[in-house]
Amino acid sequence: MKRVGVVLSGCGVHDGSEIHEAVLTLLALDRAGAEAVCFAPDSMQAVVIDHFSGEKTTGQRNILVESARIARGHIRPLSEARADELDALIVPGGFGAVLNLSDIADKGAECGVDADLRRLTREIHKRRKAIGFICIASALLPKLLDTPLRLTIGTDIDTAEMIEDMGGIHVVCPVDDIVVDADNKVITTPGYMLAASIAEAAKGIDKLVARVLELTA
Amino acid sequence: MKRVGVVLSGCGVHDGSEIHEAVLTLLALDRAGAEAVCFAPDSMQAVVIDHFSGEKTTGQRNILVESARIARGHIRPLSEARADELDALIVPGGFGAVLNLSDIADKGAECGVDADLRRLTREIHKRRKAIGFICIASALLPKLLDTPLRLTIGTDIDTAEMIEDMGGIHVVCPVDDIVVDADNKVITTPGYMLAASIAEAAKGIDKLVARVLELTA
Repeated sequence: MKRVGVVLSGCGVHDGSEIHEAVLTLLALDRAGAEAVCFAPDSMQAVVIDHFSGEKTTGQRNILVESARIARGHIRPLSEARADELDALIVPGGFGAVLNLSDIADKGAECGVDADLRRLTREIHKRRKAIGFICIASALLPKLLDTPLRLTIGTDIDTAEMIEDMGGIHVVCPVDDIVVDADNKVITTPGYMLAASIAEAAKGIDKLVARVLELTA
Repeated sequence: MKRVGVVLSGCGVHDGSEIHEAVLTLLALDRAGAEAVCFAPDSMQAVVIDHFSGEKTTGQRNILVESARIARGHIRPLSEARADELDALIVPGGFGAVLNLSDIADKGAECGVDADLRRLTREIHKRRKAIGFICIASALLPKLLDTPLRLTIGTDIDTAEMIEDMGGIHVVCPVDDIVVDADNKVITTPGYMLAASIAEAAKGIDKLVARVLELTA
């Protein structure tokens, strides 16, 4: 059974992992007979957003503890993740990617990224294993791997320019498709950067998971 | 386009809606071309559980605000839900059903149920519209509708006996199937009461959503 690391960044589109994207990833992996191994940073979220009002709240929440809601408790600290226990790596989107796994939301192209995620992604890449990033999470890739990569976040021009500023090569892509950097085994899909509904997001994510597993064969 | 009310009870299996069941419901509805209209009680959760440790925490969270994470903000207070704006009703499982939509977890067969959910379910039933309940949420049905109903929570004997004590008729059912009370247009499926994985839960939920929409035709 293939084991695929899934890195979460909280539980909710505005301050954590986009829940639909994360669940669709787990569903596609399970349907393909692969095992999802979930990880998240054991540290505090950058912000907590009230998802009903859209406003910032005063509370504090731990990224690992909130991510455990999506993973039904089956999750480990990202610091424990080892490339040699995994066959591939997938990172769903949501603002957690740009708030908790990096500070892109604040600093743009000058951002830093989570040190454990950087170490894990580089080890996976060095071992020639497949890597799938979804939605806004894909914007982290130029900071995670030094190689210039072909990747997509969909069609948003400002984000695409920021990715190019960081050394990435942005490729425009519709919601139901993927961009494959075959040399680097890196696959990306727009997810809710473009999706108008969950079934739309699922089309691209299903393709991404299938291609990640193909490249893992 | 058919409009289906989806009643959530928080965001996380141990103190709210089971996230996978809720997302699978939204996915199946969207793929079938139906519109999900999400609702949740605008009141505080009975408890907040740390989903990493499994322990109770001291914090307080609002059911509507947390449910909004699953609904990506597109959700309304349950008190506003009207049967005449909906073609059908679905309630996913998770401990929120027995902690926040009722106090079954504390009081068993002597429990009370959320007054708005009771009103909405009875109005939907009176209008001969379809009703789908998933996982442990199905245990609420005998308290929501006075008619004796055929329903399932899977195979758990203690829960089945409690349902019979409340006047329900429990039918044993495997994870990938549904129980249909055709006279009452009530459909139930075991979900994570039995599912060992998300793809297993999806089989029953996909069938439930399809049958709910058939009975809505």
